[in-house]
Amino acid sequence: MKVVIHIDDSAQWQAALEKALPQATVLTSDAPEDERKNADYLAVWKAPEHLLQEQSQLKGIINLGAGVDYLLKTPGLPSDVPIVKLRDAGMGELMADYVLYGVLHFYRSMDRYATQQQSATWKPQAVPEKTQWPVGVLGLGAIGSYVATHLSQAGFPVLGWSRSPKEISGVRCLHGDKGLDELLGQVQSLVTILPDTAATEGILNAERLAKLPEGASVINPGRGSLIDEQALLDALGETNKPGHLRGALLDVFCEEPLPTNHPLWQHPSVLVTPHMAAPTPLNDAIDQVIAYIEAFEAGESLATISPEAGY
Amino acid sequence: MKVVIHIDDSAQWQAALEKALPQATVLTSDAPEDERKNADYLAVWKAPEHLLQEQSQLKGIINLGAGVDYLLKTPGLPSDVPIVKLRDAGMGELMADYVLYGVLHFYRSMDRYATQQQSATWKPQAVPEKTQWPVGVLGLGAIGSYVATHLSQAGFPVLGWSRSPKEISGVRCLHGDKGLDELLGQVQSLVTILPDTAATEGILNAERLAKLPEGASVINPGRGSLIDEQALLDALGETNKPGHLRGALLDVFCEEPLPTNHPLWQHPSVLVTPHMAAPTPLNDAIDQVIAYIEAFEAGESLATISPEAGY
Repeated sequence: MKVVIHIDDSAQWQAALEKALPQATVLTSDAPEDERKNADYLAVWKAPEHLLQEQSQLKGIINLGAGVDYLLKTPGLPSDVPIVKLRDAGMGELMADYVLYGVLHFYRSMDRYATQQQSATWKPQAVPEKTQWPVGVLGLGAIGSYVATHLSQAGFPVLGWSRSPKEISGVRCLHGDKGLDELLGQVQSLVTILPDTAATEGILNAERLAKLPEGASVINPGRGSLIDEQALLDALGETNKPGHLRGALLDVFCEEPLPTNHPLWQHPSVLVTPHMAAPTPLNDAIDQVIAYIEAFEAGESLATISPEAGY
Repeated sequence: MKVVIHIDDSAQWQAALEKALPQATVLTSDAPEDERKNADYLAVWKAPEHLLQEQSQLKGIINLGAGVDYLLKTPGLPSDVPIVKLRDAGMGELMADYVLYGVLHFYRSMDRYATQQQSATWKPQAVPEKTQWPVGVLGLGAIGSYVATHLSQAGFPVLGWSRSPKEISGVRCLHGDKGLDELLGQVQSLVTILPDTAATEGILNAERLAKLPEGASVINPGRGSLIDEQALLDALGETNKPGHLRGALLDVFCEEPLPTNHPLWQHPSVLVTPHMAAPTPLNDAIDQVIAYIEAFEAGESLATISPEAGY
């Protein structure tokens, strides 16, 4: 059996799969073409076109993530090979930890202490009651709901927003344009976990950012397209002329990697992380890949992706 | 009725108490001597000697914190006035949030991303499984136990240590010198919440810091005296010559405020915060102070401090 892997850090995956499947030949997509051809299984994340096209005897494709939009749009994807995808293995927890870190960063004034440290300034900042620090979560899908619940359990009042009405225990759920305005008007920290669709592109524009309370902070672990980056920069202001917003923790950007000359890199009120809020945890993912391959080999029936439905 | 307050930020307390007790005269210790004399109640944190000595008709002293060691050692403390103290109103949660922030900071490589941001470097760092990130908590008193439990609930394996044996659900409790060595040998992040006693002074010396795994981090929200600061600096190394330890989040120091020329302010792997990990939350505390005054006035029996026992 031959398995070919394509993902960042594929060497780690290769080592783990070789160990778990000693009977298999496990290659990365860097292997020479004549070796990586004739694979039985592809385990891939954003695979290049040629890797799909050069296969002739695939028994299955394992998408190494929960989103299959990229794979389904890749030319050369065979129509007769079953596709399975990783479930949200631990991604909710990773995202929730990232968001909680960001909320605590602003709530506990860690941004101000970092600035004070530069001039050796010892000045405690008051810690407001958590009841005075409502957090907004835009997007209440599986991961957004998990994050909202986690923040609520951490003691923050949480307002959630989605296009259509939802109910989540401990979260005040709003919806529609009016609900969005209501949420924006009262949250100290705003978290964006919406999917990237035509309706969400630039949803945080200058007008909506202006509706946030003075000194609010933005945490975006969702998609870069959700925020108008120039409007955010304007709202953050400059060192000598602070703007309406206090700061931002951003994991995703309109262009990734974030171009080296982009002003978000240099802005003193912005923390940039390189799209790492919720990487697929390796061990969980490896276990799922092995289970899929064993199920394929045993001829078991699997919940496969419907290319027509898109998920 | 006259209440005199002595604490940092006493104006905030004064305003809140005046509002809650409209029938009372509420002064801060900055008031002229003839006004602040003849108080009925002192609400104090680290009160100066003279403030205690000049009183003649006190009905009660309210210690604005959970530790009464300072008050009991203050010359001039009247022996016939009942003393009450604030319970740990929300301090466990404040401390636990601070510590979780610190653990996530290193666990999620936020220290590395901050460095990378300085050179606009986009480089995701692997997120290990939490099972691979054991956290050690030195000190398992009320707050230490709260913090250890909180970290365990956040998914980290937690090893706790105290002089004498303890049992805490979800925490592997060790004790004694041998237990300390065992803990130090395996934790990725080390949290120090011990009290300041002769036995704990400099407990984290060069020898013990060297027992931590390569790349471990230290979080000290406890007492400055627990860590040999020069040994910590040596273990952290320099930018061009990284040491055995990866970084530290420090809230307390041998001398506070941390002197402006102290090398900890400038060290690139150290986050300095100004003794703010667990301030007494104002609202909770005010409510307790009011309840105490009302109970004193009503002649109710109160759980008072025993100066002989020291708590």
